[in-house]
Amino acid sequence: MMSNHGTDVTALESHVDVLIIGAGPAGSFLALALGRAGVHVRIVDKKEAKITSGHADGIQPRMIEVFQSYGLAERLLKEAAQLRVNAYYVSKPEGGIMRTILEPTVKGSRYPFEVTLAQSRIEDILRDAMEECGVYVEQPKVPISLSLSEDESELQSRSSEPYPVKIVLQRPSASTRVENGHNVHTNGAANTSTVLGSASGAAQDIVRAKYVVGADGAHSWVRSAVGIDMVGESTKFVWGVVDFVPESDFPDLRISCAIHTEHGNCMIIPREKDLIRVYVHLGDVEVGEDGRINRLQFGPDEILKVAQKCFYPYKLLAPQGFDWWTVYIVGQRVASSFSVKNRIFIVGDACHTHSPKAGQGMNASMNDAHNLAWKLAYVMRHWAPSTLLDTYEFERRKFAQDLIDFDKMFATLYSVTPKPGDKNHERFVEACNTYSAFVLGHGVQYEASTITDITHASIASGLVIGQRIPPGIIVQVANFRPYELHDLLPSDTRFKILILPGDASKPKQKAKLDAVAAEIDHPEGFLKRFTPAGAPDDTMFDIITISHTPCVAANTLVIPPRLQSHWSKSFMDAQTMCEGIGGNLYASYGVSDAGAIIVCRPDGYIGMVAALDDLAEIGKYFANFLHSTPVTA
Amino acid sequence: MMSNHGTDVTALESHVDVLIIGAGPAGSFLALALGRAGVHVRIVDKKEAKITSGHADGIQPRMIEVFQSYGLAERLLKEAAQLRVNAYYVSKPEGGIMRTILEPTVKGSRYPFEVTLAQSRIEDILRDAMEECGVYVEQPKVPISLSLSEDESELQSRSSEPYPVKIVLQRPSASTRVENGHNVHTNGAANTSTVLGSASGAAQDIVRAKYVVGADGAHSWVRSAVGIDMVGESTKFVWGVVDFVPESDFPDLRISCAIHTEHGNCMIIPREKDLIRVYVHLGDVEVGEDGRINRLQFGPDEILKVAQKCFYPYKLLAPQGFDWWTVYIVGQRVASSFSVKNRIFIVGDACHTHSPKAGQGMNASMNDAHNLAWKLAYVMRHWAPSTLLDTYEFERRKFAQDLIDFDKMFATLYSVTPKPGDKNHERFVEACNTYSAFVLGHGVQYEASTITDITHASIASGLVIGQRIPPGIIVQVANFRPYELHDLLPSDTRFKILILPGDASKPKQKAKLDAVAAEIDHPEGFLKRFTPAGAPDDTMFDIITISHTPCVAANTLVIPPRLQSHWSKSFMDAQTMCEGIGGNLYASYGVSDAGAIIVCRPDGYIGMVAALDDLAEIGKYFANFLHSTPVTA
Repeated sequence: MMSNHGTDVTALESHVDVLIIGAGPAGSFLALALGRAGVHVRIVDKKEAKITSGHADGIQPRMIEVFQSYGLAERLLKEAAQLRVNAYYVSKPEGGIMRTILEPTVKGSRYPFEVTLAQSRIEDILRDAMEECGVYVEQPKVPISLSLSEDESELQSRSSEPYPVKIVLQRPSASTRVENGHNVHTNGAANTSTVLGSASGAAQDIVRAKYVVGADGAHSWVRSAVGIDMVGESTKFVWGVVDFVPESDFPDLRISCAIHTEHGNCMIIPREKDLIRVYVHLGDVEVGEDGRINRLQFGPDEILKVAQKCFYPYKLLAPQGFDWWTVYIVGQRVASSFSVKNRIFIVGDACHTHSPKAGQGMNASMNDAHNLAWKLAYVMRHWAPSTLLDTYEFERRKFAQDLIDFDKMFATLYSVTPKPGDKNHERFVEACNTYSAFVLGHGVQYEASTITDITHASIASGLVIGQRIPPGIIVQVANFRPYELHDLLPSDTRFKILILPGDASKPKQKAKLDAVAAEIDHPEGFLKRFTPAGAPDDTMFDIITISHTPCVAANTLVIPPRLQSHWSKSFMDAQTMCEGIGGNLYASYGVSDAGAIIVCRPDGYIGMVAALDDLAEIGKYFANFLHSTPVTA
Repeated sequence: MMSNHGTDVTALESHVDVLIIGAGPAGSFLALALGRAGVHVRIVDKKEAKITSGHADGIQPRMIEVFQSYGLAERLLKEAAQLRVNAYYVSKPEGGIMRTILEPTVKGSRYPFEVTLAQSRIEDILRDAMEECGVYVEQPKVPISLSLSEDESELQSRSSEPYPVKIVLQRPSASTRVENGHNVHTNGAANTSTVLGSASGAAQDIVRAKYVVGADGAHSWVRSAVGIDMVGESTKFVWGVVDFVPESDFPDLRISCAIHTEHGNCMIIPREKDLIRVYVHLGDVEVGEDGRINRLQFGPDEILKVAQKCFYPYKLLAPQGFDWWTVYIVGQRVASSFSVKNRIFIVGDACHTHSPKAGQGMNASMNDAHNLAWKLAYVMRHWAPSTLLDTYEFERRKFAQDLIDFDKMFATLYSVTPKPGDKNHERFVEACNTYSAFVLGHGVQYEASTITDITHASIASGLVIGQRIPPGIIVQVANFRPYELHDLLPSDTRFKILILPGDASKPKQKAKLDAVAAEIDHPEGFLKRFTPAGAPDDTMFDIITISHTPCVAANTLVIPPRLQSHWSKSFMDAQTMCEGIGGNLYASYGVSDAGAIIVCRPDGYIGMVAALDDLAEIGKYFANFLHSTPVTA
């Protein structure tokens, strides 16, 4: 490893697997996921330092699950506020407002709540985890040119190691301000190339990368540089947002509230510590011809004044001042493409912009990164052809379009000033319920593709292939300890093969399970065919067996030794003897006593389902998108 | 702060609030608890370095609760193995062994399992937490003399700051071996005296302490120095213990098993990682006249051989060798006294020795420390007279005696070789069930005393005053977030005043609650009478209100502002809208709709119960053991 701070150097050239432009939630998440996967990654950001307040704050239940799969949920939940209940308020005929509905925020998720935490603190969590992989944000640093090799053989090369993207970085100005402390560290374990620190002043940093990812926000430089358009439009709705510690006699200040009144619309989102965030519809604001508004006409005091009108007769004051505020026009756009030749990608706000009120932005952005990370890792490891990367745009652009469609409906219902007798408020509540699973994230569904095979869906009729696998309690056979299945599915880039043999203590199912165990090492089976030559069996596939056996009948001897690489790998779908939890997995997954095999993708989504004795079908599934004779181990 | 490493210095003198001799679980726990309480504490140990394997390993559910109250359970649970199920095995008539019973290990506790983790790792958890308070173990260092002032006025002094205990410490030898790195650090925040590092070689360290605590084990130097006897006797039962990673076809290797056979008795305790601990009854061993055995006649191979006989027809091998082993005679003794003039105390094994098989030793030791810590802090802060310290021996010696009585019965049943037709095994299983709550810890009950007032027990008929308060889910009023009540009762040396007003949304109970709020600042009320002059109201008393109100009727306005120093302080006994948990606290505590006030001691034990409108009774309770006109704030 080398580090070069020479001041006379004006252009340094280096190589990297993946260069990420932008260290917001999407870029940081991607850097973390790739760093964990052992990919040599660099990440730069144009800002002088991390943001410290404001910006996004909502984390949906599915995103908490994703954080958990990276081991980050514990810290998130310690720091964040929980939104467990929604309240709806409307004008009372005699004046003032009244609560019409009080209902749980979340249904059908592992975490029965949304959380809110300032984007800056989300970024802290991600950066701290990145740094454990030796990845540090280099800032301030901006790209000034980007080019992609036009040599098709280089772009498609599998056995050589092309670096077809050339990007030139530099400090945004010759400023002498101090950069943050860690921006030229390199990873001692995972990185194999030399990373050079940029010299101060006008020195340029020429980077040759296998892949470049633009995570540089709604006004993405990368997106512009490669000529990707944003498709969509702005609305006429102008909203203001303000964060503060309130003084109020309003009783529902610590739950999520939508307030629809004749004097205006307002939304309250409780935040970490004693903060709340208030959104108000600013209504009739003149929008310039460029689609931008003159922010100078509004300050936080004006935003608070509108909120105070909605709150009447309750008081709402900000005696400690404002933590952060902004004004925005709701605009809904999706990038026309998410990638150029599978070498340059965009993620996050660079791909999609929409209104913030459903708390989707940061989730959508980080889920883009989560979706892309394992695919990049597989292609870079030569485990999969580059066509696997096509599924990133296929899956995430469809999601973005669905999100924009939802947002259009939602933002309109939210922004219209109710009039006596209209059903706007009722339609709003109804829409919230209809789109709940999508908004919360567990309803997001990827369409059928090479990696999402719905052929045998009926074998697990309670599952939706292409959705994330639902949570469930299972019990370890050896010690009767209950586990949440999700905790056994870390985002470690491995496919999880869940073998559900029915009741393995019954001779018929035991015989079938023994047959699976005997067949699993077949040279033409998926395990030997796709696992890199010479690598351990659990390199790409993590096998977990879950028998539908009551506690008293279960013991470790029921599961064939071949399926117990360790005693901790065998589970039962049974109720625990003490708390009486568990025992509902087969039923909720719609798996009969004939059993099933469920293939869970590295990102936690269900990739396919097969019959218990149909290992051949599993092999066919993986052949769709994996190399069967890996070049390297 | 000073530190002196001069080699010519042969005697340094310093002052400290509390000097702890011995850094095993009892001493380390006490140092942590006192360090957290801001007490200037030093702790020394005769060992060259920390132990690294073997010794105690069992942590009972109540002890997990105590760890949680110090914020340490998360790490404990991450590292430890969980024991959720017990199995009992006996000889089969045709040879070999069979399982007769499989049952949950724990009933009626917050944590439905015991955990096992090597004592060394428990000590790591405690030391890391101690070090956050600036307290570091000084080792190797031994006491060589101990003396207590005989000046009664000094011993009883309240307004001056006597240091009546003089103790001389030195390194155990002139060894030049390197001490561990942190042994002369001092606490920058809490410590007000100078701590001097001991010089190397024969240099002496003269310490003048307010209090000295001997946590120096079964052969306690402190206990001998002050002439406290151990009362009790040895048995004839000799047991061997060995820790190893097994290779075995025995199906129940990862649960707690008691195996009673005609070929011997054996017990298996699964441990962290892949270790197990095996206890075997070595039977007819010659005990020397001094009550000690010749350990040389046994090694781990002999212990394993006995276990193998019990295991037949299952195999039990230790292919990776042994992690730790020992041989011991079961002896049951309790110290005749736990204190000398409330200035010198003994805790842990120095107070009580018994058989290890019920997994009690480390729990009893740390609970001694937990019981003593807050009392020492109160007396040192001049919040309570020294008579409060009488309750340490009163409570913990009674517990130790109960433990020895249980252990005598248990060890006998365990060590007797069963004969066909006897009912020994059945009696053993029955005893395990009878003593379950005591063994698990939540059944431990302190007798009535100045700090345990059973007068109004009928007001909360589901509680046992003198036991730890049972766990329960309550819901925060402001945001509908469920909390385990225990998580609101940290070991922060404060009394927790739980106000249960019945349904505060009903006018009658609301009026009573308003009256409590109005009365709480009365100059003669407990809050003003005992809180140190000038200190914040929540210095000694943390007030939490729990209304028996359904979610839909509850809002923060129901609870009087005086009882909501922060919105997070008001709760309801209600079911959550999403998961449907909670709503059972009043019922399980046996509190009627008339309400109650429960006073929870700083150690989590129920101190007293009063009627909702009977603040006077609460004042009387505290007057029993607190100074009503504190000398210092």
